[in-house]
Amino acid sequence: MQTELSRKLGIEHAVFGFTPFPAVAAAISRAGGFGVLGAVRYTAPDDLKRDLDWLDAHAGGRPYGLDVVMPAKKVEGVTEADVEAMIPEEHRRFVRDTLAAHGVPELADGEASGWRITGWMEQVARTQLDVAFDYPIRLLANALGSPPADVVARAHDRDVLVAALAGSARHARKHQEAGIDIVVAQGYEAGGHTGEIATMVLTPEVVEAVDPLPVLAAGGIGSGPQVAAALALGAQGVWLGSIWLTTTEADLHSPALTRKLLAAGSGDTVRSRALTGKPARQLRTAWTEAWDDPAGPGTLPMPLQGLLVADAVSRIQKYEVEPLLGTPVGQIVGRMTAERSVQAVFDDLTRGFEKAVDRVNRIAGRSGRS
Amino acid sequence: MQTELSRKLGIEHAVFGFTPFPAVAAAISRAGGFGVLGAVRYTAPDDLKRDLDWLDAHAGGRPYGLDVVMPAKKVEGVTEADVEAMIPEEHRRFVRDTLAAHGVPELADGEASGWRITGWMEQVARTQLDVAFDYPIRLLANALGSPPADVVARAHDRDVLVAALAGSARHARKHQEAGIDIVVAQGYEAGGHTGEIATMVLTPEVVEAVDPLPVLAAGGIGSGPQVAAALALGAQGVWLGSIWLTTTEADLHSPALTRKLLAAGSGDTVRSRALTGKPARQLRTAWTEAWDDPAGPGTLPMPLQGLLVADAVSRIQKYEVEPLLGTPVGQIVGRMTAERSVQAVFDDLTRGFEKAVDRVNRIAGRSGRS
Repeated sequence: MQTELSRKLGIEHAVFGFTPFPAVAAAISRAGGFGVLGAVRYTAPDDLKRDLDWLDAHAGGRPYGLDVVMPAKKVEGVTEADVEAMIPEEHRRFVRDTLAAHGVPELADGEASGWRITGWMEQVARTQLDVAFDYPIRLLANALGSPPADVVARAHDRDVLVAALAGSARHARKHQEAGIDIVVAQGYEAGGHTGEIATMVLTPEVVEAVDPLPVLAAGGIGSGPQVAAALALGAQGVWLGSIWLTTTEADLHSPALTRKLLAAGSGDTVRSRALTGKPARQLRTAWTEAWDDPAGPGTLPMPLQGLLVADAVSRIQKYEVEPLLGTPVGQIVGRMTAERSVQAVFDDLTRGFEKAVDRVNRIAGRSGRS
Repeated sequence: MQTELSRKLGIEHAVFGFTPFPAVAAAISRAGGFGVLGAVRYTAPDDLKRDLDWLDAHAGGRPYGLDVVMPAKKVEGVTEADVEAMIPEEHRRFVRDTLAAHGVPELADGEASGWRITGWMEQVARTQLDVAFDYPIRLLANALGSPPADVVARAHDRDVLVAALAGSARHARKHQEAGIDIVVAQGYEAGGHTGEIATMVLTPEVVEAVDPLPVLAAGGIGSGPQVAAALALGAQGVWLGSIWLTTTEADLHSPALTRKLLAAGSGDTVRSRALTGKPARQLRTAWTEAWDDPAGPGTLPMPLQGLLVADAVSRIQKYEVEPLLGTPVGQIVGRMTAERSVQAVFDDLTRGFEKAVDRVNRIAGRSGRS
């Protein structure tokens, strides 16, 4: 499964795997794909350094990358306390009431939330980059628009390719103008922040919009036939995130959440603003339903919503309060029915890809194999 | 582009084209695809007879089919007047006010609405079938669940294959249990009634759910690469509806609507209940925005909404009131940028398909052509 981009990066399969877990990222790279470590949860530089040390030691000498969440526009002089002060009391009460209705225990004193707004702020992302550029990362991806120009320049100085996610052809062209090297076309069915245009329509639109830039297709991809479909649509590779959540290398710290993921069908996700204030696909839970309920106060804009719910999400996760327990995940969750190793996922992807190519060749009246 | 199903039907390309226009259906069949005429607008049997006569004479001896809208459950003794009586005055007023705000003229006395609830009712669909079974139709499709058992039996007696649309694997299995021969997996990005699961995820799910029944992929397909993608996902063919709306053979009776379709991007559709009471993808207009506005009365359930808005939709279409003017169409509308003949669409589909197969073969390390 070789494209111009995979050859450029020296990987065996044009499969890019986004994951918050170093063990998963390392296993993806070892399996011949390209592991991309999500940095958003690393608010302390030393934690990121520790995990990049580990990743670098365990990637088998194969290339890997980093994904940050960095706004293109700088917000000067705004602290977390300033943002806190903008949250209406009505919304704080709604959080308390919803948690109380489900009997969610308090965090112990001094227990920090595992998911803070700070990871979304430019200063933190820059600190992450200061750490990351000491490692031989080959790709820097940004999940929140184009990275600032100086960051793109810094990456290019180090021969690091820059990727950015886009949900429309218009966004993709903006990335191209900002000097980005790779566009990740994130379809409606993808986990996390998504637009409304489905992968089947979005991928070729983005490919045509930014030609000759390489495009990775994201959203709805978790099997070999889906990889073949994405490549037929003109992508130079696929970007998979959800599928790794139930691999044996992943560490969700919650058997209940893993069980929920394994049990969920493709119809059990929702594109909701409950987590960050922007539409992000995630498991449909009593938590998302509460926020999406017209009878409730509704969600706040980013970054207020993320800050508002950070502690609540930590409490729900820590105490595994099942009705509220969720995670960003795409519609492909319906295909995640058993825990497998990353290597087993790759074997399935590559075998399924070959079969799908055979199938399409038969339909096209060509011999199956050359 | 040959699959088991296309061979069974004796067609050259596994491309099924749904259209309300006999001239488009005939051109699709002549081009080597399979034209399916939508029957919902034929409330008078003689009109359907006239158009089937024409279609049969112009399909070049190639096979074609009919699409009806037939509920599996019979609603006994309910007349249109009974349904009319269930519509709240608040909703009638909202229709009047919205039309008045946009200066939409009244219909002349005696001008019937072009789009009535009656086409959705079982009695009418049965009358349509009485007409259609006198013609050599090869396929009977139903857009609203499985057809009643006696209709399936009647079709099978005449060697007519029965197809039904499904938006989830569960619905698809119900069709299989009802003895349906072909499932059309209708993805989120499709025009008309759709579920929330995108084609990329839905197609393989439905293929696996109803194996060995053949599945047609619908939603987001309007180019050769998209056809190749759908076939890679396991479909035995594709079901295209939107793409024909701007063909030269189509007769929308509204140059303004054609202009809107040609100008619309993939982000200019919305899945709204405004037209029928069930979510259906259509152009986003001031009309859909009014119904989807939380400040308004909201839509009524099917079939009330369809009956409520029938005359209004006729008036909007007749007088081409641009802000309100819409039509069911999928996200593929972004690709519909110029009027083309049906044959030109087919040439584009087949050439694009071959190129996409070449591309996937190169990526798979196989020679392009056998």
